[in-house]
Amino acid sequence: MRFLHTADWHVGKKLHGFDLSEEQRDAFDQIKQIAVDQNVEAVVIAGDLYDRAVASEDSVALLNQMLKELNLQAGYPLLTISGNHDSAIRLETGSDWYQATDFYLKTKFNDAFSPVILGDTQFFMLPYFQPQMARNYFEDDSLKNLPEIMEKVVAEMEQKFASDKKHVLVAHFFAAGSSHTDSETLLEVGGLNPVPVDLLEKFDYVALGHLHDKNAIKHDFIHYAGSPVKFSTSEANTEKGVWIVDTDPYQAKWIPLKPLHDIHILENSFAELTDPKLYRLIPEKDYVAIRLTDRAVIDDVMNKLRRYYPRIVSLSRVNGRENALVSDQKTTRANLNPLELFETFFEEMTADKPTPLQEKIVKESFTELQEGDTYETH
Amino acid sequence: MRFLHTADWHVGKKLHGFDLSEEQRDAFDQIKQIAVDQNVEAVVIAGDLYDRAVASEDSVALLNQMLKELNLQAGYPLLTISGNHDSAIRLETGSDWYQATDFYLKTKFNDAFSPVILGDTQFFMLPYFQPQMARNYFEDDSLKNLPEIMEKVVAEMEQKFASDKKHVLVAHFFAAGSSHTDSETLLEVGGLNPVPVDLLEKFDYVALGHLHDKNAIKHDFIHYAGSPVKFSTSEANTEKGVWIVDTDPYQAKWIPLKPLHDIHILENSFAELTDPKLYRLIPEKDYVAIRLTDRAVIDDVMNKLRRYYPRIVSLSRVNGRENALVSDQKTTRANLNPLELFETFFEEMTADKPTPLQEKIVKESFTELQEGDTYETH
Repeated sequence: MRFLHTADWHVGKKLHGFDLSEEQRDAFDQIKQIAVDQNVEAVVIAGDLYDRAVASEDSVALLNQMLKELNLQAGYPLLTISGNHDSAIRLETGSDWYQATDFYLKTKFNDAFSPVILGDTQFFMLPYFQPQMARNYFEDDSLKNLPEIMEKVVAEMEQKFASDKKHVLVAHFFAAGSSHTDSETLLEVGGLNPVPVDLLEKFDYVALGHLHDKNAIKHDFIHYAGSPVKFSTSEANTEKGVWIVDTDPYQAKWIPLKPLHDIHILENSFAELTDPKLYRLIPEKDYVAIRLTDRAVIDDVMNKLRRYYPRIVSLSRVNGRENALVSDQKTTRANLNPLELFETFFEEMTADKPTPLQEKIVKESFTELQEGDTYETH
Repeated sequence: MRFLHTADWHVGKKLHGFDLSEEQRDAFDQIKQIAVDQNVEAVVIAGDLYDRAVASEDSVALLNQMLKELNLQAGYPLLTISGNHDSAIRLETGSDWYQATDFYLKTKFNDAFSPVILGDTQFFMLPYFQPQMARNYFEDDSLKNLPEIMEKVVAEMEQKFASDKKHVLVAHFFAAGSSHTDSETLLEVGGLNPVPVDLLEKFDYVALGHLHDKNAIKHDFIHYAGSPVKFSTSEANTEKGVWIVDTDPYQAKWIPLKPLHDIHILENSFAELTDPKLYRLIPEKDYVAIRLTDRAVIDDVMNKLRRYYPRIVSLSRVNGRENALVSDQKTTRANLNPLELFETFFEEMTADKPTPLQEKIVKESFTELQEGDTYETH
């Protein structure tokens, strides 16, 4: 069978205060069109449908509309799981009704072991889960981390493998590295052990969600789909898209999405930025992160630049600033007191100084925090 | 046809801090059993399914479970609308999928004019709505209030009446009085004009939600179902239940629900309250509102009474209190300063004095509020 693999829609996500629903709606329309053009038989969404556990009414309406269009109107079977950004309980409302139209929305760890069968394939749907859920399921409190848990999960799934079917895992977690790597060099992020990629090689395809860049894993049949929209300046140069997967014979094809409003990182001087040769290249609705190369003080720089780039998402000085509080951020930050640290941060973010009222509020907050502390912090 | 009419479930509602989900689940089980015993062909829920627009995860899970049991498991067609406590947008998620199993969940004003046909009956489903929605729909900005709007709504519905069908209105608003009453004497609550009851007499039955007491309207075929659980001490003496409605020949039968844990209002002396002759009559899990008749100061009265009545929802003094700050509340309250007013309120609510820390917090808050004021308040 042929299916489309996408993930990390993060409906409701904002980019430095800018609402991205227009971009999300546009990316969705492209995905829908790709599904038609590529003649897929199902759509897999590997978690993080919403950006927040309690999504806004607008986000609820938008996601509901998208799922309706894909499943009820276009008639695609949907295979979806909850991610760490979703509230499993809120998301699963109604899911018992959805199955009648082949919309499988799985949010419970235990669901993972009852595969959904579509065409020639068994889909094992593993939502984002807390380690304790796995310990309860396996009745084994000794399971320490994700690699250990996933070893048991995969073994349990293997027992359900139908020999005449292909086996696809849909999951939402951090996968990286190899179980053969020396444990000390095993990449750890935020204290979490990633799932070693080779642990997942029992499957014919692994449709992952969680990381927003498809290049987070380079593997023949284990893929992150990435997010359909650039959600941060760190994603400015990543290509967004979806995977089109054929199960037999196996093939995975990447189809890029065209950003409605792109993100640009401009490392230029004020003179260059205000030169038509540069700013005319940037569509007005695109987002720009500016890394200003000047060192001179420029009054009201943010407002001046907004005339050319209405959607500035960040402004920083790459060469520091004349008379600036901090000349070399990395080495001196440790020596700043909290208030100075705040001021530095504020200036980097807004290219402006805090007002006296803002300073007052921050000072009072620090005082309160210190009074609340058992230990004096200075 | 025969249907069951209920309303105002308010899933997630708390009674003075006490979680009512156990009571709600029990009332639901009784309703389900009544549906079976009475052999109904559909269940009508006339709004306020949730207590809050953003319900907790527990409430979402509980309501979803109830609707699943009624519709998917027991197989009853469901006719439901959103009430003023529901978020229409959050509630309607999934509703497009629900219709396949005759679960009609209507949340939009415009939905009201496309009746759901079940058996011999057209059900006109009018969710709670803002007047502006009606003005937009009728393209008539002159529509002032609910009575004017409902006149147009009913006229529009009448045009859709199929002559070979019965016509039922399901709605969630405040209905009372008659349009023949002199307008000046027309009951107004919270500045809202109620819908005159005779305006609704075009229908064969009107299934209302909003008011929690079925006796709010005494009419042959226009009924509030009331809430299935007592949600406040003011409902202590109201009987909860559901209506079983036959359309042809018309008949409406009231079937009471038995409260799992009842609410009692006890107007007694401390001596009476601590006498086994009284407290043994009150089941331990029942809720009690105590109206203490003593005037003497009783140290730690709340904690003393909790030994006999673990679920006290309120405690007040009906005859005032010796040496109390306020001897006649109604006449002297106006003369109290904010701090004294707080202390009086605190004592009435908790039958205890505020601690020095609590006093300090309140004093500081008042000071802050006063500093923020343009006018001095003393």
